[in-house]
Amino acid sequence: RVFKLLVLPGDGIGPEIIRETLRIVDWARNAGLRIELSEGLAGGASIDAVGAPIAEDVVEQALASDAVLFGAVGGPKWDHLPRAQRPEMGILRLRQALDLYANLRPAVCFDELLDASALKPELIRGLDILIVREATAGVYFSLPRANEVGPDGQRRAYDTQAYTEGQIARVCRTAFELARTRQRRVCSVDKANVMETGALWRAVATEVAADYPDVELSHMYADNCAMQLVRRPDQFDVIVTDNLFGDILSDAAAALTGSLGLLPSASLCGLGQGGRSRGLYEPIHGSAPDIAGQGVANPIATILSFALCLRWSFDRADLADRLERAVRHVVYSGVRTPDIAHAGIAAVSTIEMTDAVLTALHAQ
Amino acid sequence: RVFKLLVLPGDGIGPEIIRETLRIVDWARNAGLRIELSEGLAGGASIDAVGAPIAEDVVEQALASDAVLFGAVGGPKWDHLPRAQRPEMGILRLRQALDLYANLRPAVCFDELLDASALKPELIRGLDILIVREATAGVYFSLPRANEVGPDGQRRAYDTQAYTEGQIARVCRTAFELARTRQRRVCSVDKANVMETGALWRAVATEVAADYPDVELSHMYADNCAMQLVRRPDQFDVIVTDNLFGDILSDAAAALTGSLGLLPSASLCGLGQGGRSRGLYEPIHGSAPDIAGQGVANPIATILSFALCLRWSFDRADLADRLERAVRHVVYSGVRTPDIAHAGIAAVSTIEMTDAVLTALHAQ
Ligand SMILES: CC(C)[C@H](C(=O)O)[C@@H](O)C(=O)O
Ligand SMILES: CC(C)[C@H](C(=O)O)[C@@H](O)C(=O)O
Repeated sequence: RVFKLLVLPGDGIGPEIIRETLRIVDWARNAGLRIELSEGLAGGASIDAVGAPIAEDVVEQALASDAVLFGAVGGPKWDHLPRAQRPEMGILRLRQALDLYANLRPAVCFDELLDASALKPELIRGLDILIVREATAGVYFSLPRANEVGPDGQRRAYDTQAYTEGQIARVCRTAFELARTRQRRVCSVDKANVMETGALWRAVATEVAADYPDVELSHMYADNCAMQLVRRPDQFDVIVTDNLFGDILSDAAAALTGSLGLLPSASLCGLGQGGRSRGLYEPIHGSAPDIAGQGVANPIATILSFALCLRWSFDRADLADRLERAVRHVVYSGVRTPDIAHAGIAAVSTIEMTDAVLTALHAQ
Repeated sequence: RVFKLLVLPGDGIGPEIIRETLRIVDWARNAGLRIELSEGLAGGASIDAVGAPIAEDVVEQALASDAVLFGAVGGPKWDHLPRAQRPEMGILRLRQALDLYANLRPAVCFDELLDASALKPELIRGLDILIVREATAGVYFSLPRANEVGPDGQRRAYDTQAYTEGQIARVCRTAFELARTRQRRVCSVDKANVMETGALWRAVATEVAADYPDVELSHMYADNCAMQLVRRPDQFDVIVTDNLFGDILSDAAAALTGSLGLLPSASLCGLGQGGRSRGLYEPIHGSAPDIAGQGVANPIATILSFALCLRWSFDRADLADRLERAVRHVVYSGVRTPDIAHAGIAAVSTIEMTDAVLTALHAQ
């Protein structure tokens, strides 16, 4: 079959890192994968062209695709806009429209970059945590919400955090499925001691666990999880949590690894037949407007996001493995863009980094 | 005048560390401070005695006091209870009844304990962050909230996060006042890109800043803050944020320091005349049921909480300074309870640690 891939480069370094990743897409095609490519606007680029962070026909196109490869959005140019019109809304809209409820954020330490971590090497060597964040509900999307003036003339604002048991169960199921391909341990994170949604979260996670007797479930409060991530990150295998906690904890976990610029992410709507899912793939780093257009951005996080795409949406774990192995080889052999270069070592460009990955792929 | 101090030892190691801290209270009395002491039940101890995590007459007593010294609550014995009846509710009830909207959580690194931190020493040496967490509103207390079965038979739960401009402004003002005694930098943390309350938070923090032209205000998203705390914690002076973000970020910050067992906290309702406020003071660590009753708990965090009490509620910054200096001297001279003892060094007991602090105080 032919897989449809929609590419949304976005803003800042987005176009540069996507351009290079498309060379890796070509490699996958040459390896026999049939991919039909299309490209669209998202974020600031879309705001400038059509007045909205994502156009409805682009959302339609995404719905008709097997996967979306997303660069990065945002920049100072659009910072003054009201919340609903800002570049970030593009990605939130896609998550919801495509029902991408499971946002997978691996926090993996590239041991060659241990030095770059704030943590002591012995604590993060070999670190491999997978955060599964619910991404279509919770405080990000629930209603009612408002910013208004009360009868007393005071401004007041409110948000709602809501979850149904179905919304919790499905993302927990994704976490348990993935744990089976790893160390078979799931830590479910909530504030059940304070929040009603936390209490329901804990109850449903416990119920889902009954279907996975081979996977160990533990529960942790979100504040304690933030603490434990710093103190002893290697205690975690898979963490499953809600939209807001997942946003914060996955950023903390990524920062721990010291490999921030290299980390990919995937947003899935379940692991259907043969583990395949529609998916959106993007680096966890941002659009880095400060270095945009200079040709020095690190394409690795985007290339690894495409590896996740190969694995989860294109059913080609074999190619994903090869690509991940090639990237590891390149990083370990010392090829470095400026963001990960040691002092005194000559850094390569975005293009040269991709060249190195392709060379490693061809040498396999 | 005579200051009224209500002592609530709580559960686990609470009674032990409070007992020792009362010897420090005696030192303050001998130094001329007039303190009227009373004691009450909170947490599991209160559940066992009167069936609730805090009795209303204890709340009344707290309201009639200048300060509350709180030990720690909770333990496996009460873990099965429903949320509203659990030990933690005692502290939440006190925060709200006493309107203790500013929860101060210093994340300070004791350089002698650098080894105990997960972070590289050069990143946290001399670290001194003050997190000011809003503690009487937000998702902890806002209504409506429920856990119910919907018309479709599915369970669903929701919480509300609400803030008024007044609730935001007063805690921001506390943060700015405190920044004036420090490096004059406030970082306000929210999710203004996603939440209505975040947008209001950012607007009000900016307005309050206009009254403090000598203090620098910056804004940061909560996810980025979690990341920055790990990557470069020394960029922060004062962080001000809402109840839920403050809960998570302050635990992350405390963990960074490696001095977790030594950190105090204060909950204030404003810095009124001469900076004095009603306050509740407690260690940030928990009730540690696993080591309760063995006489090995570290009393330092509670002793330092009393130092904050001297400073903020009893108007005796001079005694607070002396006490903090004595503690630093003791820790730096290598006196160690088991939690902070280096391998191969004999650890002291809870009582001996307090003896050492008193000796240092008398030697001043
Ligand atoms: C850009 C922003 C809305 C988004 C979020 O908060 O989810 C980002 O932080 C992320 O984690 O993908
Ligand atoms: C015990 C719990 C309710 C409490 C909170 O979440 O506020 C605790 O974590 C804290 O930070 O003081």
